[in-house]
Amino acid sequence: MIFIDACFKKPTPTAPAWLMRQAGRYLSEYLATRAKAKDFIDFCRRSDLAAEATLQPVEILGVDAAIIFSDILVVPLEMGMKLEFERGAGPVLPRPIQNESDIDGLSDNAVDRLGYVYDALRLTREHLAPDKALIGFAGSPWTLATYMIEGGGSKTYAIAKKMAYSAPDMLHKLLRKLSDAISGYLLRQIDAGANAVQIFDSWGGALEKEAFFEFSWSYMLKIAERIKSARPDIPVILFSKGAGGYLESIGGDFDAFGVDWNTPIERAKNLLFDRYALQGNMEPARLYDKAAIESGVREIARVMGKADGYIFNLGHGMQPDFSRENAKFLVDFVHQTFAR
Amino acid sequence: MIFIDACFKKPTPTAPAWLMRQAGRYLSEYLATRAKAKDFIDFCRRSDLAAEATLQPVEILGVDAAIIFSDILVVPLEMGMKLEFERGAGPVLPRPIQNESDIDGLSDNAVDRLGYVYDALRLTREHLAPDKALIGFAGSPWTLATYMIEGGGSKTYAIAKKMAYSAPDMLHKLLRKLSDAISGYLLRQIDAGANAVQIFDSWGGALEKEAFFEFSWSYMLKIAERIKSARPDIPVILFSKGAGGYLESIGGDFDAFGVDWNTPIERAKNLLFDRYALQGNMEPARLYDKAAIESGVREIARVMGKADGYIFNLGHGMQPDFSRENAKFLVDFVHQTFAR
Repeated sequence: MIFIDACFKKPTPTAPAWLMRQAGRYLSEYLATRAKAKDFIDFCRRSDLAAEATLQPVEILGVDAAIIFSDILVVPLEMGMKLEFERGAGPVLPRPIQNESDIDGLSDNAVDRLGYVYDALRLTREHLAPDKALIGFAGSPWTLATYMIEGGGSKTYAIAKKMAYSAPDMLHKLLRKLSDAISGYLLRQIDAGANAVQIFDSWGGALEKEAFFEFSWSYMLKIAERIKSARPDIPVILFSKGAGGYLESIGGDFDAFGVDWNTPIERAKNLLFDRYALQGNMEPARLYDKAAIESGVREIARVMGKADGYIFNLGHGMQPDFSRENAKFLVDFVHQTFAR
Repeated sequence: MIFIDACFKKPTPTAPAWLMRQAGRYLSEYLATRAKAKDFIDFCRRSDLAAEATLQPVEILGVDAAIIFSDILVVPLEMGMKLEFERGAGPVLPRPIQNESDIDGLSDNAVDRLGYVYDALRLTREHLAPDKALIGFAGSPWTLATYMIEGGGSKTYAIAKKMAYSAPDMLHKLLRKLSDAISGYLLRQIDAGANAVQIFDSWGGALEKEAFFEFSWSYMLKIAERIKSARPDIPVILFSKGAGGYLESIGGDFDAFGVDWNTPIERAKNLLFDRYALQGNMEPARLYDKAAIESGVREIARVMGKADGYIFNLGHGMQPDFSRENAKFLVDFVHQTFAR
């Protein structure tokens, strides 16, 4: 699997490529699969449908890795939090975490309740070509905590930040509980067939540097360490959106660093590539235009050259209004451009 | 005026302090003033009320500079765009820019139509203590363009970015038109009594590095150059939110760089302080807690020391749920901490 080789900085015939949120609404096949489910949560819980959505972009785009179709919020859901997805409105958690007893009330059995994800992984791995990697994933403790505290998405993260600055012990208690659940969840995903795991810290950049390392990065690292000590053969990829200003202080035991589009790839290369594989970071909006795709890929190739340990990806997720044709063009162009 | 001295890196008895969005809903006096206006646009157009709101935080908090109360969207408004502020929903521009003829249709007379802002500046300067600076401001061309193209705020800037990558000439045409208006607007603000001007590039960080310099920073610099060549005595402050990863490439003719909270102040100091005054960058959420305020200010003081050319500010704006007591505590604590 060239994706796994690249995570371990071993030689590969070209740069492996996959796209964050590659199973998504820009694909008519995805919409057809989704239509078979009652609602979005049902979609996540239906292992057969999740496996179907996971496999689609591999067949359609020729990417080198599939990422299991799911949502980061299945962890809070199975910890017992009420969760609703309203069309076009994003997730809503109508009974957010407000105090210690809310945290105490979270179930410790989420890892066991997430069997539908493990089933989807097993089913996907059965149908996936042997040279294609299957990626498991989870949200970071901090990112999940923001949803659980804010009761949904947020522009300012005011409630979660207020807790960080005025009740840090309470926040740490929640983050520890989440870290335990996420570690167990990822290990079970590996048992079920995931060849690599990625932690998505979508809102890491909502924290200033000091707070980022205290409330987000340290927990991501603890999870990575637990996985690496149990399963050193499985690459761990960490992706913190918006942490580009903090790279000087990044370290610890993981394999690949996901670079967002807001972080110049040259900066990531200079600061991290001696120790980590790098994954990323084309600006997703370049998908709107083929010439912009070409210049974006060429610019990354100019910086990274054909060095081992580079994985092509976007710097953020695919958007619903992107074209499948341009996505396919992108993957082909990457494979050509980085061919050794 | 210690604020102006600091912008020019001259010695000051302590670090001057002001807070972005210091005239805001966290102050009951502001709410009382706002209640006298019909709606938010009327508030911006009523020079007497704008001056009143501008002066309040100087009296209440003891900040060293007042920033004229207004909104960056008065420029598109006076270029002829329909603009609505609905309570709690943010600005809406119901007829966004979609093609070249929409751009051609924008009025060239906005600078003359903004007389109410100049009147507010004159009125404020009359009532402001002579040692307090009055700051004029405008949004950056790119930031205004995003509102004008998206028809309001945006999470992904998909429409504006699509234009950047697939119709860059059209976007440049709009940005040139905006730059002309903004340059004229800021010069007229200076004529009316502004002692310094700041350009707010709130959405600069929505662009990847290459696009940031092409579509945002280059236009901010052109405006700065026009102001500096006409009025070298007036400090120009540039603030691009989210551009912390791009500091290695920052240069040009302006006086002070505004540092957002997402950019470590140490990084800004290392890369920019030899050439520019620095303003910023305490995480606003620290306002929720006095101990967090103290440690935030002390951390900046540890990095910046008592060097001339440092202006205290937040790394983003004040929020409606902040307490005036903590804001006052912050300003006093800054003045004490940085006293020579």
